[in-house]
Amino acid sequence: MNQNELKRLVGEKSVEWIKDGMIVGLGTGSTVRYMVDALGRRVVEEGLKITGVTTSNATAKQATELNIPLRSVDEVDHIDLVIDGADEISRDFQGIKGGGAALLFEKIVAVNSKKVLWIVDESKMVDKLGAFPLPVEVIPYGSQKLFERFEAKGLNPTFRKKEDGSLLLTDSDNYIIDLHLGQIDDPHSLADYLDKQVGVVEHGLFLDMVNDVIVGQQLGPVVLHARD
Amino acid sequence: MNQNELKRLVGEKSVEWIKDGMIVGLGTGSTVRYMVDALGRRVVEEGLKITGVTTSNATAKQATELNIPLRSVDEVDHIDLVIDGADEISRDFQGIKGGGAALLFEKIVAVNSKKVLWIVDESKMVDKLGAFPLPVEVIPYGSQKLFERFEAKGLNPTFRKKEDGSLLLTDSDNYIIDLHLGQIDDPHSLADYLDKQVGVVEHGLFLDMVNDVIVGQQLGPVVLHARD
Repeated sequence: MNQNELKRLVGEKSVEWIKDGMIVGLGTGSTVRYMVDALGRRVVEEGLKITGVTTSNATAKQATELNIPLRSVDEVDHIDLVIDGADEISRDFQGIKGGGAALLFEKIVAVNSKKVLWIVDESKMVDKLGAFPLPVEVIPYGSQKLFERFEAKGLNPTFRKKEDGSLLLTDSDNYIIDLHLGQIDDPHSLADYLDKQVGVVEHGLFLDMVNDVIVGQQLGPVVLHARD
Repeated sequence: MNQNELKRLVGEKSVEWIKDGMIVGLGTGSTVRYMVDALGRRVVEEGLKITGVTTSNATAKQATELNIPLRSVDEVDHIDLVIDGADEISRDFQGIKGGGAALLFEKIVAVNSKKVLWIVDESKMVDKLGAFPLPVEVIPYGSQKLFERFEAKGLNPTFRKKEDGSLLLTDSDNYIIDLHLGQIDDPHSLADYLDKQVGVVEHGLFLDMVNDVIVGQQLGPVVLHARD
């Protein structure tokens, strides 16, 4: 199976977690796209009644087209489960997210959800985090100075750009600075540092957050339990 | 002297800190307004050559009208000095800012400035911080949930509203939640907590940041040295 087939299989597998009446956070990204498609089919074919809470304009558009009812995170009493992708997951179940530039809303939905389920193909499982560049969402004003501070600290920053070469804007009209770190030995201490930086809105380290992971492998999806 | 006269005197006094050729951060607020007026006069009368870096749309407008040349924080090599107001300054020179809702850009400029000078009337000097509500700038998405988290933690939050009752938007289109704390015993630990909250863009605790303070008192402005 190629990577897309692995993604499709975990996406379809993950909707088994969704029960009638649930309020479900819908992540963002190519694997989540398959999950939302499968969820849309269950809504039509089984009359499944759920409420979706989206994490990006992109997923909101897809869910709306599939007639999945949507509410914002502030309009629901709680979220039962969020299903989202990840760009890297380490052996101790820490994650990097934000390759799709939706990390801010993804994290807001995740911290407000009772359960967090990540769905990935096997290429995302790593020994240690850091080969994938760590996305950091930053306020445009002062971002050049922040970039220089990251550079001086040896964090190898690059501004995320669109195909036309202009700076990418997030759904909150901020920039993304990607940190090319190679290997992150202490994700908690890096997260602390980034949390404290003035101008950093949020970063892509999702620590101590995921409960279960479905990994797409050649022999089929495998479920790993990370933490209660 | 009434409070406005004290503000005017410290505002006018503070421009003595500005030397020809300097790049100067211009804060926001009623006391800073007097400082910018006085700076405008020096530019006209003495031909003082400076570059201003503003912290809000409001100050940018005033400075432009006074023909003070402006650059963004990202267009200057460095900032020599920022002159800004404060809402509360404790005996150990920690501060609360953000009453004017400009705390984000004010903090971005402050951390990029070689020297930080605060100008206040004597009513702002307090024993301990906290009588002034602590402003927290938050991402609109998820802000209701964040508000509930603050409430559960006993932080007495209120959303900042405009006179017409609608929610106030900052220059970055975020909301302000004010925390009514009465007294803040450990500002550093509160700052750590707020830095870590997903959805918090920045908060009004300006810790270990100010170098000098000019306090407007009845007998005239007094200069206090906080730290090198």
